[in-house]
Amino acid sequence: MTPEPFERRWGELEAIGRVSSGGYRRFAWSREDAVLREWFAGQVAALKLDLTLDRAGNQWAWWGDPDAAADAGNPGIVIGSHLDSVPDGGAFDGPLGVVSALAAVEALKAEGFVPGRPIGVVNFTDEEGARFGVACTGSRIITGAMTPERAGALRDADGVRLTEAMRNAGHNPEQIGRDDETLRRIGSFVELHVEQGRLLADTTQGPGAAVGVASAIWPHGRWRFDFPGEANHAGTTRLVDRRDPMLDYARAVLAARDAAEQHRAVATFGKVRVEPNGVNAIPSLVRAWLDARAPEEVAVLEVVAQLTRDAERIGAQVHEESWTATTGFDPVLRDRLAALLGGPGQPAPILGTGAGHDAGILSAAGVPAGMLFVRNPTGISHSPAEYAEVDDCVAGIEALITVVRDLAA
Amino acid sequence: MTPEPFERRWGELEAIGRVSSGGYRRFAWSREDAVLREWFAGQVAALKLDLTLDRAGNQWAWWGDPDAAADAGNPGIVIGSHLDSVPDGGAFDGPLGVVSALAAVEALKAEGFVPGRPIGVVNFTDEEGARFGVACTGSRIITGAMTPERAGALRDADGVRLTEAMRNAGHNPEQIGRDDETLRRIGSFVELHVEQGRLLADTTQGPGAAVGVASAIWPHGRWRFDFPGEANHAGTTRLVDRRDPMLDYARAVLAARDAAEQHRAVATFGKVRVEPNGVNAIPSLVRAWLDARAPEEVAVLEVVAQLTRDAERIGAQVHEESWTATTGFDPVLRDRLAALLGGPGQPAPILGTGAGHDAGILSAAGVPAGMLFVRNPTGISHSPAEYAEVDDCVAGIEALITVVRDLAA
Repeated sequence: MTPEPFERRWGELEAIGRVSSGGYRRFAWSREDAVLREWFAGQVAALKLDLTLDRAGNQWAWWGDPDAAADAGNPGIVIGSHLDSVPDGGAFDGPLGVVSALAAVEALKAEGFVPGRPIGVVNFTDEEGARFGVACTGSRIITGAMTPERAGALRDADGVRLTEAMRNAGHNPEQIGRDDETLRRIGSFVELHVEQGRLLADTTQGPGAAVGVASAIWPHGRWRFDFPGEANHAGTTRLVDRRDPMLDYARAVLAARDAAEQHRAVATFGKVRVEPNGVNAIPSLVRAWLDARAPEEVAVLEVVAQLTRDAERIGAQVHEESWTATTGFDPVLRDRLAALLGGPGQPAPILGTGAGHDAGILSAAGVPAGMLFVRNPTGISHSPAEYAEVDDCVAGIEALITVVRDLAA
Repeated sequence: MTPEPFERRWGELEAIGRVSSGGYRRFAWSREDAVLREWFAGQVAALKLDLTLDRAGNQWAWWGDPDAAADAGNPGIVIGSHLDSVPDGGAFDGPLGVVSALAAVEALKAEGFVPGRPIGVVNFTDEEGARFGVACTGSRIITGAMTPERAGALRDADGVRLTEAMRNAGHNPEQIGRDDETLRRIGSFVELHVEQGRLLADTTQGPGAAVGVASAIWPHGRWRFDFPGEANHAGTTRLVDRRDPMLDYARAVLAARDAAEQHRAVATFGKVRVEPNGVNAIPSLVRAWLDARAPEEVAVLEVVAQLTRDAERIGAQVHEESWTATTGFDPVLRDRLAALLGGPGQPAPILGTGAGHDAGILSAAGVPAGMLFVRNPTGISHSPAEYAEVDDCVAGIEALITVVRDLAA
């Protein structure tokens, strides 16, 4: 196929939520998010799909009647991803999957494909958790992995509740909760995503090298560390009289790196909030977030336990904000995707990933789910430097078309 | 005197700019600042003083004609301080000096005092530098210690220029610059301030113990450290592939404390800004501010040189945002204040301070200046816990009255 169906949509998204760094700030239920949701609705209308919202506000576009098909024991095949971003994130993480899904449906319609089961395209809300602190909120809510009470307690940095933000965006938060009506429509879910590493780029392979298939998502979680101190004047307070939590935080940052090395994990303090954050004021509080992951659960838990012990010994509090165990994708679906996308006798590459995804949340909830990764020559993600070649994006769309043709035959 | 003249004014200020921490956010040229300036203008009108603004926007209230007096070689005596605060600062740092000066003028008018020279009350703008990063901007501008070019380049965290903020507040920034017309009106300046330490509280002394006199301001400065990194996904980027500037920052925080101990200085990283500051993103930049001070200049410079060497070796940039050498106050004025406020044969306590003040900027510019400190039982400042007893505040007002009666006789 030509790059046009990809490039047209990519160009429409390019300016939305772009900031001076060259990256994007597209946070859940923000003004930018509303523009993206409108864009998605417009795409869906142009493709003559039926748009529905679920109890978390995720957008679903259906070709065919998903309820009739579910009643008949023949639920749909869903493709798609998310449109939100981390702060100053790249253009590909999320939107590539949504744009590719829409382009794939357009191509299937154009070729006169007659689906043997409904085909859905999803735009999950708040995958990155950039605003309310928990990733994959949209898929966690509808699968019941996040309770309505927990969702109702989430607040952003300005103290705005998730539920208020939803309401301000014109959505009813009263419905938040597990959504079986939506879940039963999904026979299987395939999320296409830019690779967040260099495995595909570093592997010389045959025809499948631009696109790989996910094996599993590493166990991962987020922990909030509160280091309390005593606010005081930085010029007049003797060193011995200080309770400066910035020192405790600094020690934790270095300890996290050491522990990660020791346990073959990754551990990162990437976000910190200091109160009052004045040049001449000793902080009263340093609040920082630890992200920890590893191929093995025990490694993550060891790193966190070690840091928690150290923190609690000096009076800091540690709060688990999220935890996701190893998520293996459906092995039958995985092998089918790899066979479909590989050459004769040579399946497409299969790779694990340290990143969480909505496909992982659905998989953990028992929905047969899989992922396709598109080659990223820099390996960089969550940064303006995130990248995929247009040819590889087109190869991703073609892969999705192949997969849907097969699964919805 | 009764506490009423103090408590009445204190009550009027109490709610302005107060935040949930119990502290204050009163930043230069903000909405809260405008309310405080209106309040000051109202006080001045009630006392029938003449209000003028200088080229930096500082507010001056005069009892008597300061120009005629300056022409006659008999310039005025000025008292006052500032009304702005650090983020989540206490109620006393600044406002105590302004309120005390207004209460002192009220009392002098009520007793029928006839000034032998003009008496001025000043409200300096932007003493804390909380918004634009440089402390004492108001006094630095009018003394020429800050050039108009430098002032014009200052921006707040949102990128708003100081000059724009002034204009938005209804003031003309075109006039910014050294203001000799204002300076020649000041025969001497006495700033009353809450003590930012416990020297007065820890010293058992005679009648002068509630109020002390400043000897000198320690040399002090602010340096901005930019630690560059490479933004990337916290889950998918191997430790060996990372350039994580949070690690460099953590090492600098600990090194600053070590260097301060070694050189008998104080050094503080109290403010930090991380980009993009996402839980699952390795930062692209950690920007942090060092505040360093000591009784001796060489100690400060050694600490900063050591940290700068370390930072530059790893590719970080260090930028001096401000530097103020030791500022001794006028020794004649200092001893006169101590004698006036002490008992017979027992001058009031004289103490140094690690905090910068507008009185120090004026003193460095050749204006005879001095300071009075009011006892602070906690010793804490730049925090909601900053405190002075009402009786001590009243003693401060009485001290100002004594000083003005003498100097303006």
